[in-house]
Amino acid sequence: MRAYLENINKAFESRARLGIMSVLMVEDKTDFNNLKETLQLTDGNLASHLRALEEAGYLQVEKQFVGRKPNTTYQATDAGREAFKAHLDALERLILDNRQNE
Amino acid sequence: MRAYLENINKAFESRARLGIMSVLMVEDKTDFNNLKETLQLTDGNLASHLRALEEAGYLQVEKQFVGRKPNTTYQATDAGREAFKAHLDALERLILDNRQNE
Repeated sequence: MRAYLENINKAFESRARLGIMSVLMVEDKTDFNNLKETLQLTDGNLASHLRALEEAGYLQVEKQFVGRKPNTTYQATDAGREAFKAHLDALERLILDNRQNE
Repeated sequence: MRAYLENINKAFESRARLGIMSVLMVEDKTDFNNLKETLQLTDGNLASHLRALEEAGYLQVEKQFVGRKPNTTYQATDAGREAFKAHLDALERLILDNRQNE
């Protein structure tokens, strides 16, 4: 197996998760609606991807109240940032490898 | 939604399919065992990914006999090559976008 394929992380495979992590790499904290609008996902779909990333330890969830309204924010963990960078590096090697063979 | 995310193709999302297409971009024709060894996949897993790529029109399957032994080869279609290149371009833009924001 090509070595870089081993570094492609199943947790980030889907377009939705690539999108979520891309947003979280830029914005320190973000909320559900911002992610939903940016990525054009349904509530259920976004929630399930967020839960999977949380369970993998790649993002943390903070629930608080803004006035009387509940507000949930999402933030990448250090582990999440490292893992996502490693995933992008692996994808980059795959791309370079493909281009070399064109 | 970031425009490049729309060009990320669900058919190529998984590591297995990235691997299969990377092999098929280089080798004109390849057989099941070569893919299996290169990508370290189980028979069932590889077969199911190959079937999905065939159904998407991204690879074609040729069954023939080598002497008395059946031999099945897999080859990327033109549509598969184009679509895979577009997918890699989208991933590249995602990577560049992430790097710019580091």
